[in-house]
Amino acid sequence: MKILIINGPNLNLLGKREVDIYGNKSFDDFFTELKSEFKEVELTYFQSNHEGELIEKIHEVGFDIDGIVMNPAGYSHTSVALADAVAAVPAPVVEIHISNIFNREPYRVHSYISPVSAGVLTGFGLTGYKLAIKSLIDSK
Amino acid sequence: MKILIINGPNLNLLGKREVDIYGNKSFDDFFTELKSEFKEVELTYFQSNHEGELIEKIHEVGFDIDGIVMNPAGYSHTSVALADAVAAVPAPVVEIHISNIFNREPYRVHSYISPVSAGVLTGFGLTGYKLAIKSLIDSK
Amino acid sequence: MKILIINGPNLNLLGKREVDIYGNKSFDDFFTELKSEFKEVELTYFQSNHEGELIEKIHEVGFDIDGIVMNPAGYSHTSVALADAVAAVPAPVVEIHISNIFNREPYRVHSYISPVSAGVLTGFGLTGYKLAIKSLIDSK
Amino acid sequence: MKILIINGPNLNLLGKREVDIYGNKSFDDFFTELKSEFKEVELTYFQSNHEGELIEKIHEVGFDIDGIVMNPAGYSHTSVALADAVAAVPAPVVEIHISNIFNREPYRVHSYISPVSAGVLTGFGLTGYKLAIKSLIDSK
Amino acid sequence: MKILIINGPNLNLLGKREVDIYGNKSFDDFFTELKSEFKEVELTYFQSNHEGELIEKIHEVGFDIDGIVMNPAGYSHTSVALADAVAAVPAPVVEIHISNIFNREPYRVHSYISPVSAGVLTGFGLTGYKLAIKSLIDSK
Amino acid sequence: MKILIINGPNLNLLGKREVDIYGNKSFDDFFTELKSEFKEVELTYFQSNHEGELIEKIHEVGFDIDGIVMNPAGYSHTSVALADAVAAVPAPVVEIHISNIFNREPYRVHSYISPVSAGVLTGFGLTGYKLAIKSLIDSK
Amino acid sequence: MKILIINGPNLNLLGKREVDIYGNKSFDDFFTELKSEFKEVELTYFQSNHEGELIEKIHEVGFDIDGIVMNPAGYSHTSVALADAVAAVPAPVVEIHISNIFNREPYRVHSYISPVSAGVLTGFGLTGYKLAIKSLIDSK
Amino acid sequence: MKILIINGPNLNLLGKREVDIYGNKSFDDFFTELKSEFKEVELTYFQSNHEGELIEKIHEVGFDIDGIVMNPAGYSHTSVALADAVAAVPAPVVEIHISNIFNREPYRVHSYISPVSAGVLTGFGLTGYKLAIKSLIDSK
Amino acid sequence: MKILIINGPNLNLLGKREVDIYGNKSFDDFFTELKSEFKEVELTYFQSNHEGELIEKIHEVGFDIDGIVMNPAGYSHTSVALADAVAAVPAPVVEIHISNIFNREPYRVHSYISPVSAGVLTGFGLTGYKLAIKSLIDSK
Amino acid sequence: MKILIINGPNLNLLGKREVDIYGNKSFDDFFTELKSEFKEVELTYFQSNHEGELIEKIHEVGFDIDGIVMNPAGYSHTSVALADAVAAVPAPVVEIHISNIFNREPYRVHSYISPVSAGVLTGFGLTGYKLAIKSLIDSK
Amino acid sequence: MKILIINGPNLNLLGKREVDIYGNKSFDDFFTELKSEFKEVELTYFQSNHEGELIEKIHEVGFDIDGIVMNPAGYSHTSVALADAVAAVPAPVVEIHISNIFNREPYRVHSYISPVSAGVLTGFGLTGYKLAIKSLIDSK
Amino acid sequence: MKILIINGPNLNLLGKREVDIYGNKSFDDFFTELKSEFKEVELTYFQSNHEGELIEKIHEVGFDIDGIVMNPAGYSHTSVALADAVAAVPAPVVEIHISNIFNREPYRVHSYISPVSAGVLTGFGLTGYKLAIKSLIDSK
Repeated sequence: MKILIINGPNLNLLGKREVDIYGNKSFDDFFTELKSEFKEVELTYFQSNHEGELIEKIHEVGFDIDGIVMNPAGYSHTSVALADAVAAVPAPVVEIHISNIFNREPYRVHSYISPVSAGVLTGFGLTGYKLAIKSLIDSK
Repeated sequence: MKILIINGPNLNLLGKREVDIYGNKSFDDFFTELKSEFKEVELTYFQSNHEGELIEKIHEVGFDIDGIVMNPAGYSHTSVALADAVAAVPAPVVEIHISNIFNREPYRVHSYISPVSAGVLTGFGLTGYKLAIKSLIDSK
Repeated sequence: MKILIINGPNLNLLGKREVDIYGNKSFDDFFTELKSEFKEVELTYFQSNHEGELIEKIHEVGFDIDGIVMNPAGYSHTSVALADAVAAVPAPVVEIHISNIFNREPYRVHSYISPVSAGVLTGFGLTGYKLAIKSLIDSK
Repeated sequence: MKILIINGPNLNLLGKREVDIYGNKSFDDFFTELKSEFKEVELTYFQSNHEGELIEKIHEVGFDIDGIVMNPAGYSHTSVALADAVAAVPAPVVEIHISNIFNREPYRVHSYISPVSAGVLTGFGLTGYKLAIKSLIDSK
Repeated sequence: MKILIINGPNLNLLGKREVDIYGNKSFDDFFTELKSEFKEVELTYFQSNHEGELIEKIHEVGFDIDGIVMNPAGYSHTSVALADAVAAVPAPVVEIHISNIFNREPYRVHSYISPVSAGVLTGFGLTGYKLAIKSLIDSK
Repeated sequence: MKILIINGPNLNLLGKREVDIYGNKSFDDFFTELKSEFKEVELTYFQSNHEGELIEKIHEVGFDIDGIVMNPAGYSHTSVALADAVAAVPAPVVEIHISNIFNREPYRVHSYISPVSAGVLTGFGLTGYKLAIKSLIDSK
Repeated sequence: MKILIINGPNLNLLGKREVDIYGNKSFDDFFTELKSEFKEVELTYFQSNHEGELIEKIHEVGFDIDGIVMNPAGYSHTSVALADAVAAVPAPVVEIHISNIFNREPYRVHSYISPVSAGVLTGFGLTGYKLAIKSLIDSK
Repeated sequence: MKILIINGPNLNLLGKREVDIYGNKSFDDFFTELKSEFKEVELTYFQSNHEGELIEKIHEVGFDIDGIVMNPAGYSHTSVALADAVAAVPAPVVEIHISNIFNREPYRVHSYISPVSAGVLTGFGLTGYKLAIKSLIDSK
Repeated sequence: MKILIINGPNLNLLGKREVDIYGNKSFDDFFTELKSEFKEVELTYFQSNHEGELIEKIHEVGFDIDGIVMNPAGYSHTSVALADAVAAVPAPVVEIHISNIFNREPYRVHSYISPVSAGVLTGFGLTGYKLAIKSLIDSK
Repeated sequence: MKILIINGPNLNLLGKREVDIYGNKSFDDFFTELKSEFKEVELTYFQSNHEGELIEKIHEVGFDIDGIVMNPAGYSHTSVALADAVAAVPAPVVEIHISNIFNREPYRVHSYISPVSAGVLTGFGLTGYKLAIKSLIDSK
Repeated sequence: MKILIINGPNLNLLGKREVDIYGNKSFDDFFTELKSEFKEVELTYFQSNHEGELIEKIHEVGFDIDGIVMNPAGYSHTSVALADAVAAVPAPVVEIHISNIFNREPYRVHSYISPVSAGVLTGFGLTGYKLAIKSLIDSK
Repeated sequence: MKILIINGPNLNLLGKREVDIYGNKSFDDFFTELKSEFKEVELTYFQSNHEGELIEKIHEVGFDIDGIVMNPAGYSHTSVALADAVAAVPAPVVEIHISNIFNREPYRVHSYISPVSAGVLTGFGLTGYKLAIKSLIDSK
């Protein structure tokens, strides 16, 4: 089973930026942990700060892969184009947010991605990525 | 570890009502499955169609239990009192919705419970309950 | 043919409360009149001030009965859970309001129940109940 | 007793247009049926696609007739002038919609006519006209 | 003179829940204090987490008692049915909120109860109950 | 100097309809009064309940006449087409409302005609027509 | 007959400020013209840039005078207190705006004063003051 | 192939009215040009300032003709009844606006006709009519 | 203990203006009554129709006095500057409204002062001033 | 004559993605067809999923080319920067949408590009590109 | 070169009030600093809590002075009259706010003054006054 | 001291595009001027039309540099991701707009960047960049 994890803008700073909201673990370290926990899954990882690159990565893998776990970060709230990419491919996309976006700024409540996602996870910290992978395994 | 699952209004009809949205498995059957999957957890289950009973169940267990998995169903969108109960107790409450509420009627997008939840899971079907329990185990 | 009439919160005060809006006849007296007018129908009556009890009454009868005439009163405007109950059962539910809710407070204009009702009657006074029963007989 | 039925724009196409929403019976056939069912009432019928003609018909009969049953169709949502005509005459006007306007486009929910109507009936199909006539007979 | 104090949902947790907002005195202790301060008034007390029970208590006493002091808590913002009960009885109802609801979440600003209350008191802590009783005595 | 007075829908009922709002003088009687007061002006009068006829009357006279005094009544709030007609002709159009539309239903506050009018008069009763004519004479 | 003309903030600059909108005649010159045109009226004039002074002037004269013509200028859109003063006195207040406020900034469309005015005149330039005085004479 | 061109209110003034927005060619001249350019099409033309006449013309031809090119002008923004007529007939209706309605008054942005049109063309001047006819030929 | 009562615009007309809303007692008479009821408090009184004077009075006393009881009247709904003054001084300010502002015009519901007040009292008539003083004594 | 066709995000998937909405022809095949139909035009084609690349392509050609036909896809609704690029260059830009965006999700109705476009075409399928090119030829 | 600094309501408390937002330096001390830094400018200073006085000061100097630096404080958000004064005079007015109004209460985001200002500076603390003066010198 | 100037989309066209709004000086020429005016500062400059590149430039320098002056242009109004980048780094970011965005299109009033900026400057033309640099020097 093949799953791709996609992180959107500013998530390359994880562990470095606003640690009270996002925690202090870098995603590289966490990804090593993920791979050892889900040995049966062929896990890959992609991060980009470019809306266009995120769209193209979904185009590239979305017709073949078993599932995508995506944290669209800031683009969740502003990108119709990214949502259109998710809707255009057959692979299920699980949307994940590290923090609880429902008790932050009002503009973080709405996500263009959610209506076209296979499921949405919010507020579980990095654990959310594990739950998202598990959900894709279970729905297989 | 003790976890209570709470289901809100109309979820007693699960498996009987609108099967295209909610699936055709009854929650009782599913609960047996849950208990056998999470043997290390002391799982209990409560369902009510009464806002007041849901509030009082949270009062009753919320100061002692390790976590609550709640599907507030229709009360998600209309009950400040239920959200106040969640905020009033120390136990973490994971909010879960079976269907993807983000692509249904607009009034289902807003939940009073979400801002006071430990995390929110939407659209994973019954699998969401498993993920919710797993999240409570992991955050222990 | 079996029809249940359900009255929501505060309608137990009919004939006693705000008589300029709702008239001064008690519903019990009126129900006797209804039964004598519709002898061919097996009419029953249920009133509750509890959202949960209204939901459960719909669950109880909604899979067997030929129709429900419901005046959801104050819950019309605030109860997603009650609307979900109406949508969950096969019995047609006719929504009725005694007064013309369209020329009272603005929040009385919107009803969560209306979109899932078989039909809606507003402003005909107690006569509305007769029209609602007649509509169920005719659509049989 | 004299009652006029008024149908607004596009209802001359009834039975021909969008039969999944409005049914396939023409109003002329249905009117014959109505007259035979309500032999005690002097029923007349008027249809127009012109806002001004609807207003003038109300002026013409509204000071003498016992009641009007009006389906304002598309003008319900856009005509203050028609509502003003209804408010200007002493005859009670019962507003009727064939389909359930509450689960169609959002702009069909609001009617300028409703606040000045004697009563409103929605979603009962052609049966609604019968109920409307009955309501006028009963309130006599 | 007879006055009933009604507390709505979650107020049974007073002194235990969110003490920075609501203070740490239980309402039972405070009620003893109230009775000794207002010896000339026949004070009674009722708390419920059930919207329906609050409505029925108002029905039960509202035609005989001299006044009601009610803290509708979370139901203030969501219950048309409770407001309808207040409007239906002749007894004056004074609405009270312990905290200043005007500088908390935006949805706490609007109360369905306020327009039908005899008066509204917000932000005085438990002292507000004393002022409310005094207002009823004065307006006697 | 030539001035045309145009009255919109339902104003043919003036003196007959809602006399508490519009007064009990018919417009024909009032027009005789107007003509004798403004002998130096060639006054004509047109009333229609048809939006299209009002538009065409403006087309017909609007390129030649010295001014138009128009009470668009219900069409004020709903007719972009009528406003477009006013904007299309060189003759100045003074908009007039008999009652004070600012303290009636909220939808009467907005007029499509006002931004393209030469001036707007509201709430002066029939006297407003005299002021409007005077304003056209003065601005000549 | 006694009439007071009140001009609100910035109208002391008339003839000097934004002459394309307000014209280039000073109000003092125009007032001389007004007095000679309405010799039968005892006309007085008051201008202030202070909300409080406008309120107090209305208090001072509003219980005795035959009418007030007021151009509330910028306070039209922001002063509840000024509207309360108008509502508090028996003298009729005619509201006037020199320019057509309906085709300027959106916030100029709403006036707190209009609902409590005897009548409103907009867009007639300085001529509007004459019409306002005439309306007060006529309604005497 | 038969195509009808329908022009709505005020378009009879084309070439005469607001030439900076709509140009200075009359539609009659332009129609001659159109007929010579599309000799293979049986082109007819209809203009009306009456909402009802536009509706009835659509009823009359809409069940037989190959296509309609309609410029609904001011009725675009206010007529549900006209949109209902378009939806009621099988003939494809192409909506056209001469000017770019997206950079004029905000109320010109919304059209009731657009969601039920076969296509929408905005801002191409009279050329738009040619494009609309071509689109109907191509989709044949 | 020193307490200042501040009354905002138009309250100098109390007893004279709109007696159905505000009662017919002048505030001077009532103030004499207040002083005799609260002999232990050094009560002073200030009224102004000027926003600036109200602000400056708060500046003048707000760093020394034990409490302020303020009825901001019309400025409640429009003055950020007055709210800033309240927030700027250490003295607790109790906001009071004589009538129940929640069942009057919609714009009276919102008060800029409420979020920065120590407490808010609405609808108790003049008795509210007594309750406000009592609240300041109790919280001392 | 030189015309550039620009396609925005996800349009590289044309013929592959959501064929019920966008059809099953790839744009490359269609472009060959376009070139053979418009031999007199020097047609070029550019597609990008990157907002920045679309902006830069407009900068690159927009000062020299005769016209641009752009389908901004998802960026229509979210990109002020792209609209600013269109406004910044002298070349006319015709905006095109393949599907009828007016009967899809509400957020697809608004386009930042439309107010600065030379014209807008919606809902004609791939034929729209032909009409857009024709419009540029005609306006030459 | 002559520049006037105007401070609006409550800014006389600077250094005394809410020091965490506004800092603890009094404006008088700061003004001495400003004068010594900008020796080439004839700097004057005016503060008022009265909207009318601010308006009149602008009238007084605005036709002669080289520039005004104004911190309208609370009147920014509520005063159309002050904005009208700024628009009425030829002197450029630079608007300044000490704190970053964009991350405080939502009502502080909108300023009536900004659209008519020569420039706006927000969030630079007292340094903002220096930048504002510098901007006026530079644009000279 | 090190300061980076960042210009967002379309600002590479400065001096070439819409010269009535943005002036006719190219930024390169202006940057030479800036460097000679602020010799004590190590000034660098970066322009990009790509949201992702702007984000990455902020990541690259934002942990080391003394300050950033950014004109986010069109991305101000649409980019949560860019605002997140600003919030993520310790360097102060001063937001600058050349034109006065408060009197242009309504959508230009809101900036996601402003609440996380150290300060905001609007409407000073290119001079604003100088003021922004000066503000960073002063706050050092």
